[in-house]
Amino acid sequence: MEKVVIGIDVGGTSAKLGVVNRAGTIRWQTSFSTQSSLEEFFARVGEAIQTAQAQLIPAVEVIGIGVGAPAANARSGTLQAVNMNWSGNARPGPPDGRRPNFREALSRAVGLPVVLDNDANATALGEMYFGAAQHLRDFILVTLGTGLGSGFVVNGNLVYGSDGLAGEMGHICVDMNGRDCACGRKGCLETYVSANGLKRTVFELLAQRRTESPLRGVSYHALTARMVSEAAEAGDPIAAEAFELTGKILGLKLADAVAHTSPEAIILFGGLAGAGKLIFEPTARYLKQFILHIYRTDLPLLPSALPGSDAAVLGAAALAWDNNQ
Amino acid sequence: MEKVVIGIDVGGTSAKLGVVNRAGTIRWQTSFSTQSSLEEFFARVGEAIQTAQAQLIPAVEVIGIGVGAPAANARSGTLQAVNMNWSGNARPGPPDGRRPNFREALSRAVGLPVVLDNDANATALGEMYFGAAQHLRDFILVTLGTGLGSGFVVNGNLVYGSDGLAGEMGHICVDMNGRDCACGRKGCLETYVSANGLKRTVFELLAQRRTESPLRGVSYHALTARMVSEAAEAGDPIAAEAFELTGKILGLKLADAVAHTSPEAIILFGGLAGAGKLIFEPTARYLKQFILHIYRTDLPLLPSALPGSDAAVLGAAALAWDNNQ
Repeated sequence: MEKVVIGIDVGGTSAKLGVVNRAGTIRWQTSFSTQSSLEEFFARVGEAIQTAQAQLIPAVEVIGIGVGAPAANARSGTLQAVNMNWSGNARPGPPDGRRPNFREALSRAVGLPVVLDNDANATALGEMYFGAAQHLRDFILVTLGTGLGSGFVVNGNLVYGSDGLAGEMGHICVDMNGRDCACGRKGCLETYVSANGLKRTVFELLAQRRTESPLRGVSYHALTARMVSEAAEAGDPIAAEAFELTGKILGLKLADAVAHTSPEAIILFGGLAGAGKLIFEPTARYLKQFILHIYRTDLPLLPSALPGSDAAVLGAAALAWDNNQ
Repeated sequence: MEKVVIGIDVGGTSAKLGVVNRAGTIRWQTSFSTQSSLEEFFARVGEAIQTAQAQLIPAVEVIGIGVGAPAANARSGTLQAVNMNWSGNARPGPPDGRRPNFREALSRAVGLPVVLDNDANATALGEMYFGAAQHLRDFILVTLGTGLGSGFVVNGNLVYGSDGLAGEMGHICVDMNGRDCACGRKGCLETYVSANGLKRTVFELLAQRRTESPLRGVSYHALTARMVSEAAEAGDPIAAEAFELTGKILGLKLADAVAHTSPEAIILFGGLAGAGKLIFEPTARYLKQFILHIYRTDLPLLPSALPGSDAAVLGAAALAWDNNQ
C-alpha cells in the first residue's frame, strides 16, 4: 500500500482535494462546493478519503491531511470564514478557547491528523517538497496574485512566529503616505507589487505621461494584469514602465528581506510571476543593485516549479508530508 | 565541579574574557590586548582557562568557549580582522578553504569546542539565556550603538540564513536617495537610527529649523548622542525632534520586521537605548501606529536586561551554553 496524504485547497466557492504521494504525484483528485455548512464540507472530505482508499490501484493508505486556505492560522488552527455558512469558524488570530477550531473539528470528523496553513506558507512547502526549492533550506517564497503573500523558510522550517502570522511581506511599508491598502493603512507593498498594484501603477502613469498607449482606452475595472503584459510585449512604453517600477519596488524590498533572513534563493509564484521576464528582469536587476554587498549579489530569483493548476493542492499536501517526516 | 563556559568579547584593541556558569554568574574575568599576534591571543585564552580551572573555588570545569566579535560569521568561523596582526583570519563571508578559520584555530589551540558569532547575535542569545528574553522563543534584538545591529530568534533558535549573515537590519533601506552609508549605498537604516544617525538628524534639523538650541554651539566632531539626550531632557526642541524622528523611522522599520517574523517582543540594546524613554516612547508609539492590525498592537518593546558592562561577555558565554544544551 502506498502511503499518501490529502491536500485540500479551500477557496470561497469551492475546494479542490488531491490524493498525493511522497513524490508529488496526484493519484486522484476531486472538487466540491464550500458554500454548504462546515459539517457537509467535512462529510465530503470523509467520502473522498473513503473513495480513494476503496478504489485506487495500487491501493493507498491515507496518513494525514493538509489544508491551505487564505488567512488560515497554523498556530491556532482557525481560518477566516470562507462564507457565511462557515462563520462559526471565523477569524484568524491567536487561539480562542470559545471559538470552534477548524483544524481540530476536521481532524475529529475524519479521524486523521490535520495541518492547516495559509496559502503562501503552503506554497512555500510545496516548492520545498515538489518544486523549485527541493534542495534549499533557507528561502523566501513570494506569491504575486491579486495581493502579495510570502512564506519564509529558515533552516528547513517555515517561520511561524509567535502567533502563526509571520510572513506578511504584502504589508511592509513602501510609502507611509502612499496608496490606500485594504488593511486600512497606506503604502503597503501589495498596493504596488501585485496584479492590482500593477493596474494602479498603470493608471498613475497614464496620468503622469503624455505618451499614447492602447491602455488609454481601457477602464480601471476592465484592465487586467494580462492586458498590461500583452501591451508591454507589444512595445507599449506605459506598460513597460509599469513593470519597471513594479520590479524596482519589489527588488528593493527583497533586498531588505534578504537582510532579515539571508536566503539562498527567492521564488516568485502566482499570476503576475507568469509575466516572465517582464517582471523577473527588472526585479533581479534592482535586487542586485540594492542588496548589501556581504550577500551574494547574484542571489537566484527563481520561478515556481509547481504546475500552476495543481500548485495549491500540492502545497496543501506538502503541509501534511512535512508533518509526517 | 561546576560546569562553566568561557565568553570572550573581542574588540579592536582588547578582549574581555569571563568564566560564566549556567545561571549567568561571571565567576572570574580578565582582559588582554588583541594587538599582538593571533598565536599570542590564543595563548592568553589558554592561560586564562588554566588559571580559572586551577584557582577558582568552588572548582570549575570549562566545557566550551563562545566568542562574540564584530562582523564574525557563525557559519564560516571567520571574523573581520580586528587589527593588522590578525589579517590572516580576515574577511567575513562564505567559508573559503584557503583562509585560516579563526574558530577552528582557537579550538585546536585550547582543545575545546568554540562557537563564534557577531556581537548582535551573541547579545540576542545573552538576552535569551540571562536577560530580557528568558521566556521568549521568538524575538528580535536590535543593538543601537555607533551603528545598528540585529539578531533574529525564531522558535528558540538564532536565524543564520544560508551564509551566517542574516540579521543585518542596519542596512535595510529607509530612503534610496538618502544619507551616505559606510556600506557604499544610500539611506540605510543605521544612517538614521544609531548614535551616529541621531547626530546626523540633529545637524539636518539645525539646518532646517530656526529654533535656538545649545547644540548650535557644538561641532559635528564634538557632538555625542549623550549630549543630544541631555539637551532633550533639558527641553531643547531640536534634540527632542531628533529623537522623535529617530523613533518614527525605527518604529516603522520594526513594524516591517514584525511582518517578516512575527516576534513576541522586540528588545533594544546599546548606548542609544540607554536614552530610555526619549527613544522608547516615540519608537513604541510609531510601532503601534504602523504595525499591521493582525499583530498585537501592544507588542512589547523591552530594554535589555543584561548588565551593561558585562553584556558582551555574557552574550559570548550564551553562544557556548547554547551549543551545550
